[in-house]
Amino acid sequence: MDETPGAVAAPADAARAASTALLTDHYELTMLQAALRGGAAHRRSVFEVFTRRLPEGRRYGVVAGTGRVLDAVEDFRFDRERLEFLTRTGVIDETTAGWLADYRFSGSIHGYPEGEVYFPGSPIMVVEGSFAEAVLLETVILSILNHDSAIAAAASRMTHAAAGRPVIEMGSRRTHEQAAVAAARAAYVAGFGPTSNLEAGYRYGIPTAGTSAHAFTLLHDTERDAFTAQVTALGRGTTLLVDTYDVREAVRTAVEVAGPDLGAVRIDSGDLLVFAHRVRRQLDELGARDTRIVVTSDLDEYAIAALAAAPVDRYGVGTALVTGSGHPTCSMVYKLVARAASDDPDAPLLPVAKLSRNKPSVGGRKWAYRRPDADGVAEAEVVGAVPPPPELAAEVERHGLLVPLVRDGKVVGREPLQAARERHRRAFDRLPMSAAQLSRGEPVIPTEYHLGSE
Amino acid sequence: MDETPGAVAAPADAARAASTALLTDHYELTMLQAALRGGAAHRRSVFEVFTRRLPEGRRYGVVAGTGRVLDAVEDFRFDRERLEFLTRTGVIDETTAGWLADYRFSGSIHGYPEGEVYFPGSPIMVVEGSFAEAVLLETVILSILNHDSAIAAAASRMTHAAAGRPVIEMGSRRTHEQAAVAAARAAYVAGFGPTSNLEAGYRYGIPTAGTSAHAFTLLHDTERDAFTAQVTALGRGTTLLVDTYDVREAVRTAVEVAGPDLGAVRIDSGDLLVFAHRVRRQLDELGARDTRIVVTSDLDEYAIAALAAAPVDRYGVGTALVTGSGHPTCSMVYKLVARAASDDPDAPLLPVAKLSRNKPSVGGRKWAYRRPDADGVAEAEVVGAVPPPPELAAEVERHGLLVPLVRDGKVVGREPLQAARERHRRAFDRLPMSAAQLSRGEPVIPTEYHLGSE
Repeated sequence: MDETPGAVAAPADAARAASTALLTDHYELTMLQAALRGGAAHRRSVFEVFTRRLPEGRRYGVVAGTGRVLDAVEDFRFDRERLEFLTRTGVIDETTAGWLADYRFSGSIHGYPEGEVYFPGSPIMVVEGSFAEAVLLETVILSILNHDSAIAAAASRMTHAAAGRPVIEMGSRRTHEQAAVAAARAAYVAGFGPTSNLEAGYRYGIPTAGTSAHAFTLLHDTERDAFTAQVTALGRGTTLLVDTYDVREAVRTAVEVAGPDLGAVRIDSGDLLVFAHRVRRQLDELGARDTRIVVTSDLDEYAIAALAAAPVDRYGVGTALVTGSGHPTCSMVYKLVARAASDDPDAPLLPVAKLSRNKPSVGGRKWAYRRPDADGVAEAEVVGAVPPPPELAAEVERHGLLVPLVRDGKVVGREPLQAARERHRRAFDRLPMSAAQLSRGEPVIPTEYHLGSE
Repeated sequence: MDETPGAVAAPADAARAASTALLTDHYELTMLQAALRGGAAHRRSVFEVFTRRLPEGRRYGVVAGTGRVLDAVEDFRFDRERLEFLTRTGVIDETTAGWLADYRFSGSIHGYPEGEVYFPGSPIMVVEGSFAEAVLLETVILSILNHDSAIAAAASRMTHAAAGRPVIEMGSRRTHEQAAVAAARAAYVAGFGPTSNLEAGYRYGIPTAGTSAHAFTLLHDTERDAFTAQVTALGRGTTLLVDTYDVREAVRTAVEVAGPDLGAVRIDSGDLLVFAHRVRRQLDELGARDTRIVVTSDLDEYAIAALAAAPVDRYGVGTALVTGSGHPTCSMVYKLVARAASDDPDAPLLPVAKLSRNKPSVGGRKWAYRRPDADGVAEAEVVGAVPPPPELAAEVERHGLLVPLVRDGKVVGREPLQAARERHRRAFDRLPMSAAQLSRGEPVIPTEYHLGSE
């Protein structure tokens, strides 16, 4: 594949929508209105993002989208047109509109940093502020984290199944056009190589790659004409697609046209295991020993693993990546876990939780650390809802998972995407080896709760 | 649920991104560059969007996203910043950038109108222009149609499972924040009632609905305080959420606070069948005979059908809707099916198709009509790749499925969303009754091909 190196600095506003304020469920605003009217709107509140379980059979989750959440919080502003829409349609009254006109999130957000892994009960994000200002962020925060983390979890499994061979993200056409950009970003966090998505290159500086489709071959009178046009324009290092007609004939033509320095051939259909071996043998016989083989037909982590012994140099993954390989969303929720005991501004925080039997929640603001064993391998996710006992305090300090993301309304947790990518590699490397197993199983480490004596 | 009537006229540009040009796979631009250099770029070409199969077990597909495709084609412009990005990163050379600077799609697009149903082989969209201008649109057209049609297909099944009871779209938090807006739109096309997504109300004029979450109850010192605050702010017609603590107690409190004119209660957990019966009985005993029951916990088309005999008035659907109920994407492809026989501007069109055994394509520009039986019920999707024989020409004219969407670069197929919604209802009503079955099966009508004598 022809690849770009990736643009280091994307235009500052390339990633930003005009306003994220209406990417929000109607009920956030009716709750706000009722709380403003009733007087409880300004009670200090703590909301927590967590998940009760991983998708069935998955061994770990991957936090992704954190950087996009920070952008969304900054861009959560109600302009005149949006307020006019909300009052005209009766979603809110004028008093609420007046309050929203000045809306800026002024609270604090802590969270697992992007690329980190997570488990059931991990306090992935903790949002603190008045009820009014924090409840409004629920929908957009969950949308971003649930989508991006689902893609990253699938990407991480594929990255590790590929065992060092680059995996190219090429799923844009199989998902919403903007979700595609976020999917390319999440896949990159989880170790993918380049993406086919140009907007992801433009917004986030992710390297992009791609060469040609069957249409290019069909446009020309002969396959040879197509290969000649491509090599003339893109050089011998290009990737020629060899399965439009007959693969054996195409490989011969490709090497005749480009010479033995041809960069790569791509196979997009058929039995990839058989074809990879045949094409490798043929390329070697033709002297094209350095010409790589790229395969791209309906791959997922299982198909990638099945090709481990095949002479394949790169994998291209589309549908399975952007649909989370069977799990297109996570089940993260955004729950009120503590709030001021009364309307008094100095009232202490009170843990709260609903009692519904099949959706249990643990009240109270959480801390979390990942306990390593003697070899530094993670052995438990430890989550507490009361201040850590003295014998744990140092551990929580040392191995704590929550970092500051927003402080008093100001974003403090922004980082280059590369940092999240490196963090994911390190976090995965510290998990037990069974994390790399593709088979269904329990989370690779258990979650232990410290809930105090109550 | 408190509902807005839906804004009739959304701001003209509310639905539009700055530019859709980079929502595009890298290889579309390398193919362009190679074709410009090689000389074949200006050959007249016909690309077709179709699918080889429906998702496993599904009886019909639903076309959605057509209106969004028209916006995306109009907004497909390369500005200075984007061209600078593409040349700086080496995706394209200066010659190609010069060509792209003036890019406006000047060709024509025909397609199945939005809301129409489709089957394997249906020519869902036909894009005609020079190879250069038409190949560039592949990625963004497929992203939109594959996503929106997947959601609409799931929504249509849910709508029909609900058998006239309104279904509320509330899946925003389970999908990418912009995909959520498109999902609300697609669900509305396929017969859903209001959405929780405010941006969908703002952009597309879809009615929105929502009242409160468990957090609102937990914010208050007692459930009674919360209900009182909500009824005071939103009126007796509001929907009170009754499963934060004990459902029986909550229903009693709700009617005490709001009186027997309470609009609705919502149940979001537990055995919905059992709860619906119990709560209905309790409401009736309390004299709240007109208070409706809304259920919203992890519903899909099967759970909705299972509640058909329960005293439920409205369903709220989230995750299952935005993830396409097991099929989050369609497998629509965008294939070159015909192109000019030579570089001569007057050269005739030549059908083309690749030969790969497991991904067969039918070359040539298609026509299609849905053949009704004597009672007007559809009995076959008829697709032809050669001019229809004289005995069929009148039928194709009368029951033809393709309508003009873009003519010589100008959008001619724009219509109100309501028109697509009504079209879907009519199209579904003309399918055999088995279309409403939720069980797995074959497409409800077969596709017949007229491929001529070759």
